Amino acid sequence: MTKARTEARTRRRGGELLRSIHAAVLAELAEVGLGRLTMEGIARRAGTAKTSLYRRWASPHDVLLDAIHDEHPEEAASPAADDLRGDLLRALQQLVAWMQTPTAAAAAAIVAERKRYPELAAALYERVFDARGGRFTLTVLRHYAAHGQIDARRITPVVADIGEALVLKHALDADAPPSDEQLAAIVDEAILPAIGLGLDRPVTAR
Amino acid sequence: MTKARTEARTRRRGGELLRSIHAAVLAELAEVGLGRLTMEGIARRAGTAKTSLYRRWASPHDVLLDAIHDEHPEEAASPAADDLRGDLLRALQQLVAWMQTPTAAAAAAIVAERKRYPELAAALYERVFDARGGRFTLTVLRHYAAHGQIDARRITPVVADIGEALVLKHALDADAPPSDEQLAAIVDEAILPAIGLGLDRPVTAR
Repeated sequence: MTKARTEARTRRRGGELLRSIHAAVLAELAEVGLGRLTMEGIARRAGTAKTSLYRRWASPHDVLLDAIHDEHPEEAASPAADDLRGDLLRALQQLVAWMQTPTAAAAAAIVAERKRYPELAAALYERVFDARGGRFTLTVLRHYAAHGQIDARRITPVVADIGEALVLKHALDADAPPSDEQLAAIVDEAILPAIGLGLDRPVTAR
Repeated sequence: MTKARTEARTRRRGGELLRSIHAAVLAELAEVGLGRLTMEGIARRAGTAKTSLYRRWASPHDVLLDAIHDEHPEEAASPAADDLRGDLLRALQQLVAWMQTPTAAAAAAIVAERKRYPELAAALYERVFDARGGRFTLTVLRHYAAHGQIDARRITPVVADIGEALVLKHALDADAPPSDEQLAAIVDEAILPAIGLGLDRPVTAR
Protein backbone atom coordinates (compact mmCIF):
# COMPACT_ATOMS: atom_id res chain seq x y z
CA MET A 1 0.00 0.00 0.00
CA THR A 2 1.43 3.39 -0.95
CA LYS A 3 1.85 6.15 1.57
CA ALA A 4 -0.79 8.26 -0.19
CA ARG A 5 -3.37 5.48 -0.04
CA THR A 6 -2.66 4.85 3.62
CA GLU A 7 -3.14 8.51 4.39
CA ALA A 8 -6.37 8.69 2.41
CA ARG A 9 -7.73 5.71 4.28
CA THR A 10 -6.65 7.11 7.63
CA ARG A 11 -8.24 10.43 6.79
CA ARG A 12 -11.47 8.76 5.76
CA ARG A 13 -11.49 6.73 8.94
CA GLY A 14 -10.79 9.88 10.90
CA GLY A 15 -13.77 11.62 9.27
CA GLU A 16 -16.04 8.67 9.95
CA LEU A 17 -14.87 8.42 13.54
CA LEU A 18 -15.44 12.16 13.98
CA ARG A 19 -18.98 11.90 12.66
CA SER A 20 -19.76 9.00 14.93
CA ILE A 21 -18.35 10.92 17.91
CA HIS A 22 -20.50 13.92 16.96
CA ALA A 23 -23.59 11.73 16.72
CA ALA A 24 -22.64 10.08 20.02
CA VAL A 25 -22.31 13.32 21.98
CA LEU A 26 -25.66 14.61 20.66
CA ALA A 27 -27.42 11.34 21.48
CA GLU A 28 -25.77 11.18 24.89
CA LEU A 29 -26.82 14.76 25.63
CA ALA A 30 -30.40 13.96 24.70
CA GLU A 31 -30.39 11.02 27.05
CA VAL A 32 -28.52 12.23 30.11
CA GLY A 33 -28.50 16.03 29.91
CA LEU A 34 -25.73 18.61 30.02
CA GLY A 35 -24.84 18.04 33.67
CA ARG A 36 -24.20 14.32 33.23
CA LEU A 37 -22.33 14.36 29.94
CA THR A 38 -19.07 12.44 30.37
CA MET A 39 -16.16 11.37 28.16
CA GLU A 40 -16.93 7.77 29.18
CA GLY A 41 -20.51 8.02 27.99
CA ILE A 42 -19.55 9.60 24.67
CA ALA A 43 -16.74 7.10 24.07
CA ARG A 44 -18.95 4.10 24.86
CA ARG A 45 -21.67 5.30 22.50
CA ALA A 46 -19.18 6.10 19.71
CA GLY A 47 -17.43 2.75 20.16
CA THR A 48 -14.04 4.33 20.78
CA ALA A 49 -11.62 4.74 23.68
CA LYS A 50 -11.90 7.57 26.19
CA THR A 51 -8.19 8.31 25.67
CA SER A 52 -8.76 9.03 21.99
CA LEU A 53 -11.34 11.66 22.94
CA TYR A 54 -8.91 13.33 25.35
CA ARG A 55 -6.34 13.51 22.59
CA ARG A 56 -8.55 16.00 20.76
CA TRP A 57 -10.86 17.58 23.35
CA ALA A 58 -10.36 18.77 26.91
CA SER A 59 -13.91 18.10 28.11
CA PRO A 60 -17.27 16.63 27.08
CA HIS A 61 -18.56 20.17 26.52
CA ASP A 62 -15.76 20.77 24.00
CA VAL A 63 -16.85 17.68 22.09
CA LEU A 64 -20.41 18.97 22.15
CA LEU A 65 -19.52 22.42 20.81
CA ASP A 66 -17.56 20.89 17.96
CA ALA A 67 -20.50 18.66 17.10
CA ILE A 68 -22.98 21.54 17.11
CA HIS A 69 -20.68 23.66 14.99
CA ASP A 70 -19.93 21.02 12.38
CA GLU A 71 -23.51 19.78 12.06
CA HIS A 72 -25.09 23.25 11.95
CA PRO A 73 -26.90 23.70 8.64
CA GLU A 74 -26.21 26.75 6.51
CA GLU A 75 -29.32 28.81 6.03
CA ALA A 76 -30.38 28.81 2.43
CA ALA A 77 -32.92 31.55 2.01
CA SER A 78 -33.51 32.36 -1.64
CA PRO A 79 -36.30 34.90 -1.79
CA ALA A 80 -37.98 35.19 -5.16
CA ALA A 81 -38.84 38.92 -4.88
CA ASP A 82 -42.39 38.42 -6.07
CA ASP A 83 -43.89 36.24 -3.37
CA LEU A 84 -43.26 37.84 0.01
CA ARG A 85 -45.87 35.76 1.81
CA GLY A 86 -44.58 32.50 0.30
CA ASP A 87 -40.96 33.39 1.02
CA LEU A 88 -41.74 34.23 4.66
CA LEU A 89 -43.57 30.93 4.98
CA ARG A 90 -40.64 29.02 3.49
CA ALA A 91 -38.23 30.81 5.84
CA LEU A 92 -40.29 29.65 8.82
CA GLN A 93 -40.46 26.12 7.38
CA GLN A 94 -36.64 26.09 7.21
CA LEU A 95 -36.54 27.15 10.85
CA VAL A 96 -38.96 24.38 11.82
CA ALA A 97 -36.87 21.82 9.91
CA TRP A 98 -33.71 22.98 11.73
CA MET A 99 -35.49 22.85 15.10
CA GLN A 100 -36.06 19.14 14.63
CA THR A 101 -32.35 18.33 14.25
CA PRO A 102 -30.24 16.98 17.15
CA THR A 103 -27.99 20.06 16.96
CA ALA A 104 -30.96 22.37 17.57
CA ALA A 105 -31.93 20.31 20.62
CA ALA A 106 -28.35 20.54 21.88
CA ALA A 107 -28.26 24.30 21.32
CA ALA A 108 -31.56 24.65 23.21
CA ALA A 109 -30.17 22.60 26.11
CA ILE A 110 -27.13 24.88 26.37
CA VAL A 111 -29.22 28.06 26.24
CA ALA A 112 -31.56 26.64 28.88
CA GLU A 113 -28.64 26.00 31.23
CA ARG A 114 -26.54 29.06 30.43
CA LYS A 115 -26.65 30.23 34.05
CA ARG A 116 -24.88 27.04 35.07
CA TYR A 117 -22.50 26.88 32.10
CA PRO A 118 -21.96 30.50 31.03
CA GLU A 119 -18.75 29.80 29.11
CA LEU A 120 -20.40 27.03 27.13
CA ALA A 121 -23.32 29.32 26.24
CA ALA A 122 -20.96 32.15 25.26
CA ALA A 123 -19.00 29.76 23.06
CA LEU A 124 -22.23 28.58 21.42
CA TYR A 125 -23.16 32.14 20.46
CA GLU A 126 -19.64 33.05 19.32
CA ARG A 127 -18.66 29.88 17.52
CA VAL A 128 -22.02 28.82 16.10
CA PHE A 129 -24.83 31.38 16.10
CA ASP A 130 -22.81 34.50 15.32
CA ALA A 131 -20.61 32.68 12.83
CA ARG A 132 -23.33 30.77 11.03
CA GLY A 133 -26.64 32.15 12.25
CA GLY A 134 -28.77 35.02 11.12
CA ARG A 135 -32.47 35.13 11.25
CA PHE A 136 -34.62 33.25 8.83
CA THR A 137 -37.37 35.78 8.12
CA LEU A 138 -34.94 38.73 8.39
CA THR A 139 -33.15 37.57 5.25
CA VAL A 140 -36.46 37.65 3.38
CA LEU A 141 -37.61 40.99 4.80
CA ARG A 142 -34.31 42.69 3.91
CA HIS A 143 -34.47 41.27 0.41
CA TYR A 144 -37.94 42.74 -0.20
CA ALA A 145 -36.96 46.06 1.38
CA ALA A 146 -33.96 46.23 -0.99
CA HIS A 147 -36.41 45.73 -3.86
CA GLY A 148 -38.59 48.58 -2.57
CA GLN A 149 -41.56 46.37 -1.72
CA ILE A 150 -41.37 46.94 2.04
CA ASP A 151 -40.63 50.14 3.94
CA ALA A 152 -37.16 49.36 5.33
CA ARG A 153 -37.88 51.48 8.43
CA ARG A 154 -40.45 48.88 9.48
CA ILE A 155 -37.81 46.15 9.75
CA THR A 156 -36.95 46.89 13.38
CA PRO A 157 -35.28 44.37 15.72
CA VAL A 158 -38.72 43.52 17.10
CA VAL A 159 -40.27 42.97 13.67
CA ALA A 160 -37.29 40.86 12.57
CA ASP A 161 -37.94 38.55 15.55
CA ILE A 162 -41.72 38.11 15.29
CA GLY A 163 -41.77 34.92 13.21
CA GLU A 164 -38.95 33.16 15.06
CA ALA A 165 -40.37 34.19 18.44
CA LEU A 166 -43.82 32.80 17.66
CA VAL A 167 -42.43 29.54 16.27
CA LEU A 168 -40.30 29.11 19.39
CA LYS A 169 -43.17 29.91 21.77
CA HIS A 170 -45.46 27.49 19.95
CA ALA A 171 -42.84 24.74 20.08
CA LEU A 172 -42.33 25.29 23.82
CA ASP A 173 -46.04 25.29 24.70
CA ALA A 174 -47.14 22.47 22.42
CA ASP A 175 -43.92 20.42 22.60
CA ALA A 176 -44.20 20.19 18.81
CA PRO A 177 -43.31 22.55 15.99
CA PRO A 178 -46.13 24.54 14.36
CA SER A 179 -47.89 23.01 11.36
CA ASP A 180 -47.78 24.72 7.94
CA GLU A 181 -51.25 26.12 8.66
CA GLN A 182 -50.01 27.59 11.93
CA LEU A 183 -46.96 29.02 10.17
CA ALA A 184 -49.29 30.67 7.66
CA ALA A 185 -51.25 32.20 10.53
CA ILE A 186 -47.99 33.59 11.97
CA VAL A 187 -47.17 35.19 8.62
CA ASP A 188 -50.69 36.54 7.98
CA GLU A 189 -51.66 37.63 11.47
CA ALA A 190 -48.36 38.87 12.90
CA ILE A 191 -45.52 39.45 10.41
CA LEU A 192 -47.43 41.02 7.49
CA PRO A 193 -49.45 43.44 9.68
CA ALA A 194 -46.20 44.55 11.37
CA ILE A 195 -44.74 45.60 8.03
CA GLY A 196 -47.94 47.39 7.10
CA LEU A 197 -49.37 44.66 4.89
CA GLY A 198 -52.14 42.16 5.19
CA LEU A 199 -54.56 44.25 7.20
CA ASP A 200 -57.08 44.31 4.39
CA ARG A 201 -57.27 40.52 4.34
CA PRO A 202 -60.11 38.94 6.27
CA VAL A 203 -58.91 37.37 9.50
CA THR A 204 -60.07 33.79 9.95
CA ALA A 205 -62.18 33.40 13.06
CA ARG A 206 -61.20 30.45 15.27
CA MET B 1 -49.60 25.35 77.14
CA THR B 2 -53.11 24.65 75.84
CA LYS B 3 -53.73 22.22 73.04
CA ALA B 4 -54.84 25.06 70.72
CA ARG B 5 -51.65 27.05 71.30
CA THR B 6 -49.48 23.99 70.68
CA GLU B 7 -51.26 23.35 67.40
CA ALA B 8 -50.93 26.96 66.31
CA ARG B 9 -47.21 26.89 66.99
CA THR B 10 -46.77 23.54 65.23
CA ARG B 11 -48.70 24.82 62.24
CA ARG B 12 -46.63 27.98 62.08
CA ARG B 13 -43.45 25.97 62.29
CA GLY B 14 -44.79 23.65 59.60
CA GLY B 15 -45.48 26.64 57.36
CA GLU B 16 -42.04 28.09 57.95
CA LEU B 17 -40.37 24.75 57.32
CA LEU B 18 -42.38 24.33 54.13
CA ARG B 19 -41.30 27.73 52.86
CA SER B 20 -37.67 27.02 53.61
CA ILE B 21 -37.93 23.66 51.81
CA HIS B 22 -39.52 25.42 48.82
CA ALA B 23 -36.73 28.00 48.77
CA ALA B 24 -34.18 25.20 49.15
CA VAL B 25 -35.42 23.15 46.20
CA LEU B 26 -35.49 26.21 43.92
CA ALA B 27 -31.98 27.26 44.96
CA GLU B 28 -30.70 23.69 44.64
CA LEU B 29 -32.23 23.40 41.16
CA ALA B 30 -30.55 26.64 40.10
CA GLU B 31 -27.21 25.32 41.28
CA VAL B 32 -27.19 21.68 40.22
CA GLY B 33 -29.90 21.32 37.57
CA LEU B 34 -32.87 19.01 37.23
CA GLY B 35 -30.82 15.85 36.68
CA ARG B 36 -28.85 16.22 39.90
CA LEU B 37 -31.60 17.30 42.24
CA THR B 38 -31.57 15.02 45.30
CA MET B 39 -33.46 14.76 48.58
CA GLU B 40 -30.06 15.01 50.35
CA GLY B 41 -29.25 18.31 48.64
CA ILE B 42 -32.66 19.82 49.37
CA ALA B 43 -32.61 18.65 53.01
CA ARG B 44 -29.09 19.99 53.59
CA ARG B 45 -29.99 23.39 52.15
CA ALA B 46 -33.27 23.58 54.10
CA GLY B 47 -31.54 22.48 57.32
CA THR B 48 -33.85 19.53 57.84
CA ALA B 49 -33.60 15.75 57.73
CA LYS B 50 -33.98 13.75 54.53
CA THR B 51 -36.49 11.50 56.28
CA SER B 52 -38.79 14.44 56.93
CA LEU B 53 -38.85 15.16 53.19
CA TYR B 54 -39.73 11.56 52.39
CA ARG B 55 -42.63 11.75 54.83
CA ARG B 56 -44.32 14.25 52.51
CA TRP B 57 -42.84 13.75 49.03
CA ALA B 58 -41.86 10.69 47.03
CA SER B 59 -39.08 12.35 45.02
CA PRO B 60 -37.11 15.59 44.61
CA HIS B 61 -39.24 16.40 41.57
CA ASP B 62 -42.38 16.23 43.73
CA VAL B 63 -40.85 18.75 46.11
CA LEU B 64 -40.05 20.97 43.14
CA LEU B 65 -43.57 20.86 41.69
CA ASP B 66 -45.05 21.77 45.06
CA ALA B 67 -42.65 24.68 45.36
CA ILE B 68 -43.46 26.01 41.89
CA HIS B 69 -47.18 25.66 42.52
CA ASP B 70 -47.22 27.36 45.90
CA GLU B 71 -44.89 30.19 44.92
CA HIS B 72 -46.56 30.91 41.58
CA PRO B 73 -47.92 34.46 41.55
CA GLU B 74 -51.52 35.09 40.62
CA GLU B 75 -51.76 37.29 37.60
CA ALA B 76 -53.30 40.61 38.47
CA ALA B 77 -54.20 42.31 35.22
CA SER B 78 -56.57 45.23 35.80
CA PRO B 79 -57.10 46.91 32.46
CA ALA B 80 -58.44 50.42 32.66
CA ALA B 81 -60.42 50.30 29.38
CA ASP B 82 -59.14 53.66 28.20
CA ASP B 83 -55.42 53.02 27.83
CA LEU B 84 -54.89 49.96 25.66
CA ARG B 85 -51.24 50.72 24.95
CA GLY B 86 -50.46 51.38 28.63
CA ASP B 87 -52.32 48.27 29.75
CA LEU B 88 -50.49 46.08 27.23
CA LEU B 89 -47.20 47.55 28.43
CA ARG B 90 -48.09 46.86 32.07
CA ALA B 91 -49.10 43.29 31.20
CA LEU B 92 -45.66 42.70 29.66
CA GLN B 93 -43.99 44.32 32.68
CA GLN B 94 -45.84 41.84 34.92
CA LEU B 95 -44.55 39.03 32.74
CA VAL B 96 -40.98 40.34 32.97
CA ALA B 97 -41.28 40.63 36.77
CA TRP B 98 -42.51 37.03 36.99
CA MET B 99 -39.70 35.83 34.72
CA GLN B 100 -37.17 37.04 37.27
CA THR B 101 -38.55 34.88 40.07
CA PRO B 102 -36.96 31.54 41.06
CA THR B 103 -40.21 29.73 40.19
CA ALA B 104 -40.06 31.01 36.62
CA ALA B 105 -36.48 29.77 36.31
CA ALA B 106 -37.58 26.39 37.66
CA ALA B 107 -40.50 26.22 35.22
CA ALA B 108 -38.14 27.08 32.35
CA ALA B 109 -35.74 24.32 33.43
CA ILE B 110 -38.55 21.75 33.41
CA VAL B 111 -39.83 22.85 30.00
CA ALA B 112 -36.28 22.73 28.62
CA GLU B 113 -35.86 19.13 29.79
CA ARG B 114 -39.37 17.87 29.10
CA LYS B 115 -38.08 15.19 26.74
CA ARG B 116 -36.13 13.65 29.61
CA TYR B 117 -38.81 14.20 32.27
CA PRO B 118 -42.13 14.11 30.39
CA GLU B 119 -44.23 13.39 33.49
CA LEU B 120 -42.70 16.31 35.34
CA ALA B 121 -43.42 18.64 32.41
CA ALA B 122 -46.99 17.35 32.09
CA ALA B 123 -47.53 17.90 35.82
CA LEU B 124 -46.15 21.44 35.50
CA TYR B 125 -48.69 22.30 32.82
CA GLU B 126 -51.58 20.59 34.60
CA ARG B 127 -50.92 21.62 38.17
CA VAL B 128 -49.42 25.07 37.62
CA PHE B 129 -49.89 26.67 34.21
CA ASP B 130 -53.39 25.43 33.41
CA ALA B 131 -54.59 25.95 36.97
CA ARG B 132 -53.04 29.36 37.53
CA GLY B 133 -51.74 30.57 34.19
CA GLY B 134 -53.34 32.47 31.39
CA ARG B 135 -51.61 34.90 29.17
CA PHE B 136 -50.73 38.36 30.30
CA THR B 137 -51.59 40.40 27.20
CA LEU B 138 -54.57 38.15 26.35
CA THR B 139 -56.39 39.34 29.47
CA VAL B 140 -55.97 42.93 28.28
CA LEU B 141 -56.93 42.23 24.66
CA ARG B 142 -60.10 40.39 25.69
CA HIS B 143 -61.06 43.20 28.01
CA TYR B 144 -60.82 45.82 25.24
CA ALA B 145 -62.63 43.56 22.78
CA ALA B 146 -65.46 43.17 25.31
CA HIS B 147 -65.64 46.98 25.45
CA GLY B 148 -65.85 47.16 21.66
CA GLN B 149 -62.49 48.88 21.20
CA ILE B 150 -60.82 45.97 19.38
CA ASP B 151 -62.27 43.67 16.73
CA ALA B 152 -62.54 40.41 18.71
CA ARG B 153 -61.89 38.38 15.53
CA ARG B 154 -58.35 39.75 15.51
CA ILE B 155 -57.55 38.11 18.85
CA THR B 156 -56.40 34.83 17.34
CA PRO B 157 -54.10 32.34 19.14
CA VAL B 158 -51.15 33.82 17.24
CA VAL B 159 -52.02 37.41 18.15
CA ALA B 160 -52.57 36.47 21.78
CA ASP B 161 -49.02 35.07 21.88
CA ILE B 162 -47.11 37.90 20.16
CA GLY B 163 -46.09 39.85 23.26
CA GLU B 164 -45.13 36.83 25.38
CA ALA B 165 -43.26 35.23 22.46
CA LEU B 166 -41.16 38.35 21.82
CA VAL B 167 -40.37 38.82 25.50
CA LEU B 168 -39.29 35.18 25.75
CA LYS B 169 -37.16 35.34 22.59
CA HIS B 170 -35.47 38.53 23.77
CA ALA B 171 -34.73 37.01 27.18
CA LEU B 172 -33.24 33.91 25.56
CA ASP B 173 -31.03 35.81 23.12
CA ALA B 174 -29.88 38.57 25.45
CA ASP B 175 -29.88 36.51 28.66
CA ALA B 176 -31.74 39.45 30.20
CA PRO B 177 -35.37 40.56 30.14
CA PRO B 178 -36.35 43.40 27.78
CA SER B 179 -36.19 46.97 29.10
CA ASP B 180 -39.32 49.12 29.32
CA GLU B 181 -38.28 50.77 26.07
CA GLN B 182 -38.00 47.39 24.38
CA LEU B 183 -41.39 46.37 25.78
CA ALA B 184 -42.87 49.55 24.29
CA ALA B 185 -41.38 48.62 20.92
CA ILE B 186 -43.01 45.18 21.19
CA VAL B 187 -46.39 46.81 21.87
CA ASP B 188 -46.04 49.50 19.17
CA GLU B 189 -44.37 47.49 16.41
CA ALA B 190 -45.92 44.06 16.82
CA ILE B 191 -49.04 43.83 19.02
CA LEU B 192 -50.88 47.01 18.00
CA PRO B 193 -50.37 46.48 14.22
CA ALA B 194 -51.67 42.90 14.59
CA ILE B 195 -54.95 44.16 16.02
CA GLY B 196 -55.25 46.77 13.30
CA LEU B 197 -53.99 49.70 15.33
CA GLY B 198 -50.84 51.73 15.43
CA LEU B 199 -50.02 51.66 11.73
CA ASP B 200 -50.58 55.38 11.41
CA ARG B 201 -47.94 56.06 14.04
CA PRO B 202 -44.47 56.85 12.82
CA VAL B 203 -42.11 53.93 13.25
CA THR B 204 -38.88 54.90 14.95
CA ALA B 205 -35.91 54.26 12.72
CA ARG B 206 -33.03 52.42 14.37
